[in-house]
Amino acid sequence: MSKQELVVLAQDDADGCCGRLGSAPLDEDQAGDLAKVFKALGDPVRLRLLSMIASRAGGEVCVCELTPAFELSQPTISHHLKLLRQAGLVDSERRGTWVYYRVLPAALERLAAVLTAPQAAEVNA
Amino acid sequence: MSKQELVVLAQDDADGCCGRLGSAPLDEDQAGDLAKVFKALGDPVRLRLLSMIASRAGGEVCVCELTPAFELSQPTISHHLKLLRQAGLVDSERRGTWVYYRVLPAALERLAAVLTAPQAAEVNA
Repeated sequence: MSKQELVVLAQDDADGCCGRLGSAPLDEDQAGDLAKVFKALGDPVRLRLLSMIASRAGGEVCVCELTPAFELSQPTISHHLKLLRQAGLVDSERRGTWVYYRVLPAALERLAAVLTAPQAAEVNA
Repeated sequence: MSKQELVVLAQDDADGCCGRLGSAPLDEDQAGDLAKVFKALGDPVRLRLLSMIASRAGGEVCVCELTPAFELSQPTISHHLKLLRQAGLVDSERRGTWVYYRVLPAALERLAAVLTAPQAAEVNA
């Protein structure tokens, strides 16, 4: 499911204009896809988890390093990470005992572009 | 409340680094403030409303023009607009019978910056 959402976002990007909040009203499908991703970001624990993963120099974080930062159970943290993965914001890989998470930068960049005014995007292009 | 949140976001911007997901792990306060704004964006109706307001050439839209685009009651639309306003994403002004909405571009730009990787931000600066 996360991959499908990413594809939709990528298609919006391909025509270079649409899907930006300031360029044209979003249609129901675009709004539905984007809302799922923003909803995943609309939780303090998930935002902290995402920032811990995104700011890791090596690009990858073991779930065993994430859990101790919170006063929450391992299953709760895993549930939040699952929602981030389903939204296409992170990917995960199991190696041995542990699962390792990394951010999908293209998804964050695409979201940032959606929020960027058309004028600002042209200046930065 | 929306103004408080905007102030917090602006303070993050002032030191030019922090509050970006990729620069350092967010603390609880940062994550709490940001999550409120992303949560406001995590709904298809609110995203469509925001895009209708943000893409209006004149910058301002009467609530009387927003409601007919949805099969929802006026109070429901007004509730969604209230949540966008409380999140600091739009401002409103009553003139005569109607309320007019406009986007607060700095709030969208700040959110976009949060999602932008530090490297990309430096290239665009």
